[in-house]
Amino acid sequence: MSEVYAARRTRLRERCNAGGSAAALVSRAANVRYLAGAAPRDAVLLLGKREDLLVCAVPPDERPAEGRPDETLRVHVLSSPGGDPAVAAADLVAAQGADSVAVEEHHLTVARHRAIGSVAPGLRLADLGGAVEQLRVVKDEEEISCLRIGAEIADQALGELLESILVGRTERHLALELERRLVDHGADGPAFATSVATGPNSGLRGHAPTDRRVEEGDFLSVCLGATYHGYRCEIGRTFVIGTSPADWQIELYDLVFAAQRAARESLTPGAAYRDVDSAARHVLGSAGYREGLSPLTGHGVGLEIDEDPQLAPAAMGKLDACVPVTVEPGVHLPGRGGVRIDDTLVVRPEADGGPELLTITTKELLAL
Amino acid sequence: MSEVYAARRTRLRERCNAGGSAAALVSRAANVRYLAGAAPRDAVLLLGKREDLLVCAVPPDERPAEGRPDETLRVHVLSSPGGDPAVAAADLVAAQGADSVAVEEHHLTVARHRAIGSVAPGLRLADLGGAVEQLRVVKDEEEISCLRIGAEIADQALGELLESILVGRTERHLALELERRLVDHGADGPAFATSVATGPNSGLRGHAPTDRRVEEGDFLSVCLGATYHGYRCEIGRTFVIGTSPADWQIELYDLVFAAQRAARESLTPGAAYRDVDSAARHVLGSAGYREGLSPLTGHGVGLEIDEDPQLAPAAMGKLDACVPVTVEPGVHLPGRGGVRIDDTLVVRPEADGGPELLTITTKELLAL
Repeated sequence: MSEVYAARRTRLRERCNAGGSAAALVSRAANVRYLAGAAPRDAVLLLGKREDLLVCAVPPDERPAEGRPDETLRVHVLSSPGGDPAVAAADLVAAQGADSVAVEEHHLTVARHRAIGSVAPGLRLADLGGAVEQLRVVKDEEEISCLRIGAEIADQALGELLESILVGRTERHLALELERRLVDHGADGPAFATSVATGPNSGLRGHAPTDRRVEEGDFLSVCLGATYHGYRCEIGRTFVIGTSPADWQIELYDLVFAAQRAARESLTPGAAYRDVDSAARHVLGSAGYREGLSPLTGHGVGLEIDEDPQLAPAAMGKLDACVPVTVEPGVHLPGRGGVRIDDTLVVRPEADGGPELLTITTKELLAL
Repeated sequence: MSEVYAARRTRLRERCNAGGSAAALVSRAANVRYLAGAAPRDAVLLLGKREDLLVCAVPPDERPAEGRPDETLRVHVLSSPGGDPAVAAADLVAAQGADSVAVEEHHLTVARHRAIGSVAPGLRLADLGGAVEQLRVVKDEEEISCLRIGAEIADQALGELLESILVGRTERHLALELERRLVDHGADGPAFATSVATGPNSGLRGHAPTDRRVEEGDFLSVCLGATYHGYRCEIGRTFVIGTSPADWQIELYDLVFAAQRAARESLTPGAAYRDVDSAARHVLGSAGYREGLSPLTGHGVGLEIDEDPQLAPAAMGKLDACVPVTVEPGVHLPGRGGVRIDDTLVVRPEADGGPELLTITTKELLAL
């Protein structure tokens, strides 16, 4: 794996040098992990002028879920407690003779940025911007394999829940049970706070579980994901509780399903982000649902659950192969509830069979 | 409750004006909640020149766990998705005729700070520093009452765990079960990631649960807390698994207990933070444990689990009455395990009975 991390750092260094900085200081945890193999608490990665260093406040943890620092990388642990690794790294890079270093201005606070500036007054601080986030968009097969295993775990956890009695249980208990099952099946942990929404709450994106209990006739929408070796996936499904769905429930479900399928089918290399969004939005809009929709139809996933690209009306850019994204349109009718259907897929060329569906739980409307 | 939030804002406004700023823009979530009663996602509080405003990206959630915005405060929800409430607030305060606004430089990123500066070029951005964090140190009785209920919930969850069979279960499962029980008993959720540490892991501060199973003869150390109405408390205990603890286990336990008691007894109004720390550290040091100790003996708790003050060797300042803190010394012997004992207490004058212990689970060495 060492070569992978070294190659990623080489790509970043090239971008940095092209931008006029000899060195870079990466502080955002997911970016540090991407380039160094692990991101111990508060650690920063220094792409130095002479040497790369992982600068840590605490020694790296050895648990597999936390990753393992690339062995070719020197690890520097601060000797005094309470020190800021970013400030120490600036000091180290100045000592290496660098006259400028690019930092992540979208992550560093103003106060930390100032502290970095004062420890090495001769050092010019440039902006690295989202350079690492951009490198992270296209995944390699090792990364996709972690997402695939995470998706299998989420499918298993969800499948087991469907076999249990649901009526009378609260949203909060169902969410906790799903999270326990994720861990049972080998997840590092949940990829994000599990959402369980019943009745009038169903169909709300990111609904935080309440003490409402599942009732006969409810829509039940669930959104969960597993983290596996740091990689986070997402699945969302909506079910109906009881023997026979009402007509409005069947209609709404079919509509959201059609919107979700349209967006999934538009996932091809070269497709504009906004076109994927509008594929789903057009189906919902044709049926009269334009207001109150989620501002996005999907987003990238990886070391964070919400990464670039954003599949949204104003997003600029086009999909590449090997970009994993969610497709998660939904409709919520205030006071009645609604439907969300959410998959994680990997963009693949048509010659390779088109988009690869990672979350394979059925999307038929199940009556539970 | 409205008067409470208005009074807090008045105190902050006085500090701000004394610092030369007519307005303040508070962005750190716990600070926003403290001053406004609620902190919807990404919301900022504007202490304006003419009017105070809660500026939100999404409408406030109505769940009790999230708090409820102070009714005397105007809530402004951004109309376009993806906007930054901090930038919008800067625009609003400039429109009110303010020429400067104090911002939280320890919380805002460099990129957000720049965006705020560019939307209102005539507006001078000053630094609010930790002014709100300082106001939050001393709690009122309403806040302490939330911590007390949270502590009761944590005591209950821990008590139930002790009645169950532990041998053979993994750290991760025990942690998940504790978190479920916290929610069962009415917590908003866990106050922080529950730590369960067995055998060689026991006694490690902040140990992330692994798949190691509880074995006969182990030390088992547990650290958990409940969030109740936003307030977070903490309790940690160490037990021994099996019928009779080994001599080294009894000795180590008694030592850490003595250190913890010494620190608890030093919690009086006017005591220096560092003296509380050294009370515990001195007991451990006299027995030869000086290296590898945690850098702090305790810390404040409230809307965040780790607040000011820090009870540490280099901390400056003195305790006031009505400051809730943890007291959590520990010793870990590499390869063997160790002991941590952690309580949440409120500093009270001797005339009121001295420090108020919120976490009342026994600190006898229980053999389970």
